[in-house]
Amino acid sequence: MSAPATDKQLYLYEQVYQEIRTLIENQTFQPGEKLPSMRQLSRSRQVSLATVMQVYDLLHAHGLIEIRPQSGVYVRAQRQLALPHKARAPLGPTTLTKDAYYAQVQNLMRQPGILPLGSTILSPELLPIKALNRLISQAAQRPEVNGLVHTYSPTTGLESLRRQIALRSVDSGKPLHADDVVITCGGMEALHLALRTLAAPGEIVAVENPTFWGILQAIECLGLRALEIPTDPQEGLDLEALEQALLVHPIKVLVTIPSFQNPLGCCLSVEKKQQLLQLAQRYDFTLIEDDIYGEFYYQTPPPTLFSLDTQERVILCSSFSKTLAPGFRVGWALPGRWQQRFVQLKRMSTLSTASLPQWVIAELMASGAYERHLRRLRRRLQESMGQAQDLIAQHFPAAVRVTQPEGGFVLWLELPEGVKSEALLHACLVRGFSIAPGPMFSAREDFEHCLRLSINQPWGRPVYQALLQLAKLLQEALSS
Amino acid sequence: MSAPATDKQLYLYEQVYQEIRTLIENQTFQPGEKLPSMRQLSRSRQVSLATVMQVYDLLHAHGLIEIRPQSGVYVRAQRQLALPHKARAPLGPTTLTKDAYYAQVQNLMRQPGILPLGSTILSPELLPIKALNRLISQAAQRPEVNGLVHTYSPTTGLESLRRQIALRSVDSGKPLHADDVVITCGGMEALHLALRTLAAPGEIVAVENPTFWGILQAIECLGLRALEIPTDPQEGLDLEALEQALLVHPIKVLVTIPSFQNPLGCCLSVEKKQQLLQLAQRYDFTLIEDDIYGEFYYQTPPPTLFSLDTQERVILCSSFSKTLAPGFRVGWALPGRWQQRFVQLKRMSTLSTASLPQWVIAELMASGAYERHLRRLRRRLQESMGQAQDLIAQHFPAAVRVTQPEGGFVLWLELPEGVKSEALLHACLVRGFSIAPGPMFSAREDFEHCLRLSINQPWGRPVYQALLQLAKLLQEALSS
Repeated sequence: MSAPATDKQLYLYEQVYQEIRTLIENQTFQPGEKLPSMRQLSRSRQVSLATVMQVYDLLHAHGLIEIRPQSGVYVRAQRQLALPHKARAPLGPTTLTKDAYYAQVQNLMRQPGILPLGSTILSPELLPIKALNRLISQAAQRPEVNGLVHTYSPTTGLESLRRQIALRSVDSGKPLHADDVVITCGGMEALHLALRTLAAPGEIVAVENPTFWGILQAIECLGLRALEIPTDPQEGLDLEALEQALLVHPIKVLVTIPSFQNPLGCCLSVEKKQQLLQLAQRYDFTLIEDDIYGEFYYQTPPPTLFSLDTQERVILCSSFSKTLAPGFRVGWALPGRWQQRFVQLKRMSTLSTASLPQWVIAELMASGAYERHLRRLRRRLQESMGQAQDLIAQHFPAAVRVTQPEGGFVLWLELPEGVKSEALLHACLVRGFSIAPGPMFSAREDFEHCLRLSINQPWGRPVYQALLQLAKLLQEALSS
Repeated sequence: MSAPATDKQLYLYEQVYQEIRTLIENQTFQPGEKLPSMRQLSRSRQVSLATVMQVYDLLHAHGLIEIRPQSGVYVRAQRQLALPHKARAPLGPTTLTKDAYYAQVQNLMRQPGILPLGSTILSPELLPIKALNRLISQAAQRPEVNGLVHTYSPTTGLESLRRQIALRSVDSGKPLHADDVVITCGGMEALHLALRTLAAPGEIVAVENPTFWGILQAIECLGLRALEIPTDPQEGLDLEALEQALLVHPIKVLVTIPSFQNPLGCCLSVEKKQQLLQLAQRYDFTLIEDDIYGEFYYQTPPPTLFSLDTQERVILCSSFSKTLAPGFRVGWALPGRWQQRFVQLKRMSTLSTASLPQWVIAELMASGAYERHLRRLRRRLQESMGQAQDLIAQHFPAAVRVTQPEGGFVLWLELPEGVKSEALLHACLVRGFSIAPGPMFSAREDFEHCLRLSINQPWGRPVYQALLQLAKLLQEALSS
């Protein structure tokens, strides 16, 4: 968001911004109330439409208004719920033994017909299924494509897909070449191979606390030990706590989700990202950056650690499973200076990734449809998220704490101590939807009274009803 | 092949068999000459067509005749070339460091436009590309399929595909249930996960010598040590040598390709398969059975070790990459009593296999088209192989030794000592085709003067010309 160019414009912009802001803060415009449309405001204040758009952009960035596509601009409901607390200090490395637990919870959540608010798979209604299907049909019909689809792709992946991924990095400050990219069988393989590239069994891997259970599973599976670093629901990874841990423990690797962390939704600031890279340099450890939510920004795209890194200390892992096509199992890594070892491990474990899904994604990207889809997806997810946050603020008990994510589509809820999220999961399943219980996000048994809620659906009756049911369950739990 | 039912039939069958056999052996019918058609023989000898078919079956099994589809029955050219020697005795476990070598040779062989006789990927002309494309189009069009294709499949794989694989085991003597099957990202992942399930880094894994380089790569990648067991080009794995090795070394696992071994093409007899299972019981080791070529039999399907095993000591690994669709990367494993651990490792390393390719294969199998394709494929490969063997017998120098495989589509050639197969590869590439040099099939540097030749093409001018070129190169190498 750039400021208006001339002094005159700047003056008008400041004036209109302050006026509207005051009207919201003194509650002339009530929470939930509709604001004048941009066109009305432009006419009544005699400023350009572009200036009004910038005013609304800034109000939105400050969390004061909410833009509901096809509806209008509304005053955001006031926050009634506090932010969750930061996790406790680490106790030391943990050897994980949680796989059976994960298998059990996931089986529970996989029941057919359940609205999967416990999962981070997006509703198919949010995915460009028609465009994907058109390309799948084309792959079957075009003879020149058939040659690609029906034979092994190289271990590093289809060149056309690697080129498209590289093209998207043009504005990142560190443009990539197609050869920097390695296609994997989903983000999970990228993560798994990155860990195998950088750490040997028994070594210590630092992780955020709480963090995505897939990271903890990969660590368990490879016989590594997890060291959990407190992570603030708003500020992200606690760099001071990390430094303290580095002084005591021989940490080899840090696995981090710096942008729109799962489950917290927080985004490490650029300054903190740079500090983290300096820490890596000073204490000589490497970073695995899980950038799977990087595309789900509400305002401006956050820079990746990989793009800020000048010391080649980062392997970036990402995937199309969230943004586009979960069933395709196509992810990628930027293994940097470990490229050779990474590709070797890929060749020796899955040889290469299925060709057809790679081709379909590459074509979708080349046509521009992927960018258009992403823009639409961000808007729709942000709208759902805004609606969900308003509902939670209005209907959930005041003792519940909830994150204010800056991107992505998950909320992290902290319930009063004593309310068990696993019991809550069972109650939710009976009512037709799932949540993800807090202990899934810890190497130990932490976060019993926390849960992750995915707003992975278009806003509508099913998710609205589920959240009201959850509100009721929480009220019951708190009054019993 | 069952014998005729009644005494009368049996008598006629014996008589006609002996008659034709004598006519071939005393060269009344010359090598390469066309024999009377089955119908002619049935009429002239006044026996049923079924009896004649059984006579020809037996003559074929004894290697005396060759059945060329759409052409007729021919007297097989006499063998002029001897079988390769069995490899030397093992020296003890080897820690592998061959990945850079494999990457280099494979890059060399991947040049575009090269006839890939060094690879085991079948020519697309031999694959049911049209049928696969039809199903791909259907997947994109049928709404009820779309739900499957655009979401994660379970970690164990699509239920419909697992059921189809299980169904094919009905006649194996050990029928499977869909839940016994785990779908993997190609045979390589199956093998990799089986090794991770059964052996820890540093442990000793016995392998055939020579063996498929993918097995050696997986062993290298997992930090295991390979102990190579001499394997006879005709009889298969040397069980005595294995037992001697078992007395000296703590062998944890044996990885074997018991049916149509790669690169030797030999098939362990049922008796030897049973002996091998007894050895596993006596010395308490487990078996990973690579059954990737099991479908490529010329006569009768060989039983798998898995189907003969009553002690749950075998994990079977297989794939559709050879029979159907290399680009799909769909394989499977039967992990037996290690199912839970195997699935856990799969979940933690690639989560699940791409859904669309799984659905397409399941549909092809359910329609019966897969079985029809396999029958046709076996016939065409057997025809190509017969032609190639005849050409080799006629044109290759007498000092070259070559295998007589009982299935599959690879030949193993032993050249006189001093002829280096790697130099030969370079000369072949210049002439537009590849071969696989012998050292690829050894953990050490063995088989410098051996090579593997894949007859993975329909018989025709390109492969014919390539073999003649190879004959010429060998003659030059031997006379220099």
